[in-house]
Amino acid sequence: MSRKPTLAVVGATGAVGTVMLQILSQHADIWGEIRLVASPRSAGRKLAVRGEQVEVLALSEEVFDGVDVAMFDVPDEVAARWAPLAAAKGVVVVDNSAAFRMDPDVPLVVPEVNPHAARVRPRGIVANPNCTTLSMIVAVGALHAEFGLRELIVSSYQAVSGAGRDGVETLRRQLKLVAGSELGTSPGDVRRAVGDDTGPFPEPVALNVVPWAGTLRDDGWSSEEMKVRDESRKILGLPGLRVAATCVRVPVITTHSLTVHARFEDEVTVDRAREILATAPGVVLFDDPAAGEFPTPADVVGTDPTWVGRVRRALDDPTALELFVCGDNLRKGAALNTAQIAELVAKEFTAG
Amino acid sequence: MSRKPTLAVVGATGAVGTVMLQILSQHADIWGEIRLVASPRSAGRKLAVRGEQVEVLALSEEVFDGVDVAMFDVPDEVAARWAPLAAAKGVVVVDNSAAFRMDPDVPLVVPEVNPHAARVRPRGIVANPNCTTLSMIVAVGALHAEFGLRELIVSSYQAVSGAGRDGVETLRRQLKLVAGSELGTSPGDVRRAVGDDTGPFPEPVALNVVPWAGTLRDDGWSSEEMKVRDESRKILGLPGLRVAATCVRVPVITTHSLTVHARFEDEVTVDRAREILATAPGVVLFDDPAAGEFPTPADVVGTDPTWVGRVRRALDDPTALELFVCGDNLRKGAALNTAQIAELVAKEFTAG
Ligand SMILES: NC(=O)c1ccc[n+]([C@@H]2O[C@H](COP(=O)([O-])OP(=O)(O)OC[C@H]3O[C@@H](n4cnc5c(N)ncnc54)[C@H](OP(=O)(O)O)[C@@H]3O)[C@@H](O)[C@H]2O)c1
Ligand SMILES: NC(=O)c1ccc[n+]([C@@H]2O[C@H](COP(=O)([O-])OP(=O)(O)OC[C@H]3O[C@@H](n4cnc5c(N)ncnc54)[C@H](OP(=O)(O)O)[C@@H]3O)[C@@H](O)[C@H]2O)c1
Repeated sequence: MSRKPTLAVVGATGAVGTVMLQILSQHADIWGEIRLVASPRSAGRKLAVRGEQVEVLALSEEVFDGVDVAMFDVPDEVAARWAPLAAAKGVVVVDNSAAFRMDPDVPLVVPEVNPHAARVRPRGIVANPNCTTLSMIVAVGALHAEFGLRELIVSSYQAVSGAGRDGVETLRRQLKLVAGSELGTSPGDVRRAVGDDTGPFPEPVALNVVPWAGTLRDDGWSSEEMKVRDESRKILGLPGLRVAATCVRVPVITTHSLTVHARFEDEVTVDRAREILATAPGVVLFDDPAAGEFPTPADVVGTDPTWVGRVRRALDDPTALELFVCGDNLRKGAALNTAQIAELVAKEFTAG
Repeated sequence: MSRKPTLAVVGATGAVGTVMLQILSQHADIWGEIRLVASPRSAGRKLAVRGEQVEVLALSEEVFDGVDVAMFDVPDEVAARWAPLAAAKGVVVVDNSAAFRMDPDVPLVVPEVNPHAARVRPRGIVANPNCTTLSMIVAVGALHAEFGLRELIVSSYQAVSGAGRDGVETLRRQLKLVAGSELGTSPGDVRRAVGDDTGPFPEPVALNVVPWAGTLRDDGWSSEEMKVRDESRKILGLPGLRVAATCVRVPVITTHSLTVHARFEDEVTVDRAREILATAPGVVLFDDPAAGEFPTPADVVGTDPTWVGRVRRALDDPTALELFVCGDNLRKGAALNTAQIAELVAKEFTAG
């Protein structure tokens, strides 16, 4: 067939869904009808996409009638239940949740790194990686392609919008409580000011950093840290890659940052690493500390690429590079990558 | 001699000096006279120490007459000039600046790790490590004593008070500008709101993280990152230790956090690591994620020990441990460690 495919955006009202509607309005117009779907709570609301007001539909099997591609930007349990129902109707599902990422019959795709994987989808589902992995993997993948990656040791500085709208609203409320105060100087003073109002986080996040994201897994690891390991291995096709991640929430609205210590098979040079990063699709090298150039969330938020700075070779290990990377967790870290995958899939329809 | 030694606190009005006066008021009263010194700008001000109001003196050679021990909590260039002048008068100087730390004739001391080093001081000066190194080294030193350290890969989450009073005031001003706004969602919006008011930091620090601390050194490293490497090696007596640090400023008032990937000579176990950390002097093991226990700056600020949580063995390397550590950069990271060194020295006087 050669026609514009029909798209459904499931979770159109959420943190990721909201950015998705912006992206759909900005990207080349490859879609025919766009249907917006959310929970029954949102049914009847109107949202703007491509300059038009579109009414939100409550999620049901019927909303997938005639749909070619569906993007799912909903909680894990909603995706786990509804993505297979949509796929059973012949819809290609691009899912942003964690429900299917490690399913061997579901490809986990980053278009700059492993685009071909999107073509083989036995369950009719393509998974989008988690935002923390996505915030670094384009840069790391480009270096891996030339140097051969052996080990990743990463620490994250994760924005509150990684926990959805609730995360953003929680930090905004807490900031109002602490700004103009003398808090942050004696034990527990921020906690007492914030009270139980910690939203999706286990501790206050204003004037604080919280070394926890997700749920508890074996041996003290958090689910977010395990995702970084498991998903990096799957995307790069390196099942034995050594990965050690520590995930930490910081009081930033949007854009995840990571420090990356990447060890390769042989000696690397900073000059060659910089050449690779300067030319890799989807990567911006922003690295001149003498001129005050290194990425920060305040500059990166709202942009598409993975920004890389602070490129150094480890002083005591000529096979290792240090990087500081920033990526907008709602764009490349979620909506943009999903849109890119959906566009890859759409080509199959329009190529007809 | 067996008498209470006379102490001078140089830089008594600063961020570190202010905490020093609290510590002097709380610790066992081992000092005779305490003289408070700062720049001529502060001369004549009165500050409380040990429940008394003491007048601040302007720094001059005369203020060291009759002084046994002087703590220096002043900028590098002030320490570089004045510490040798005080030492020439027979004063034992405990210096908190970076001016003498790497001088081979100046011991760099952490009382829990290398107390004996404080006895050998050819220049009459003992140096206090920088706050980032101090925030982790007590915990790392305890593990090293048993396991034998080979490599440290660390990322910091550094509080603004690490840049002195100016750092704290800058974040407070920026927080007032961003709280109650919708900033932090489009490129440069925080920067435009903050304008040139970035204080001692190269970028806005509210709603942001900034991967830069200190000045530019060779090959893209910051001075702060080089300090972590050089000072860790000197304190631990491991001149060949592999160290890779990335130092990042975060919007926290006081208490530095670090993620630590520590690789040892042989296999380690988490159980033994936890035993060591639970019994090490100056360390609190706070590590039960199931019960919501991991250290955060909001809980640690104002306390003396190094708090350690998130203890895990690397999944792909049985010789490596992951830790998340927090330490108050003004207490153990500066004033407390200086006070502890000064107390070690004072024993030489009182042991008479
Ligand atoms: N935030 C990120 O950085 C990020 C990054 C990568 C992946 N993800 C993943 O993307 C997904 C969405 O995250 P988010 O941050 O956008 O969450 P969010 O802001 O909480 O939004 C959740 C969305 O799901 C919808 N929804 C919830 N329950 C539903 C149900 N029973 N039926 C139909 N729709 C339902 C909500 O609709 P209503 O408005 O009607 O409630 C809303 O549109 C999650 O799986 C998340 O893990 C998020
Ligand atoms: N902040 C930390 O976490 C930390 C940690 C470890 C080490 N340090 C080091 O400790 C030192 C002090 O840091 P800080 O953060 O307390 O700085 P700060 O808040 O800026 O205070 C500086 C102090 O030095 C005094 N001073 C400045 N110029 C002087 C001069 N020409 N003569 C005499 N006194 C002078 C100031 O006196 P006035 O008030 O009269 O100007 C003030 O007491 C620095 O070397 C810093 O690198 C700081």
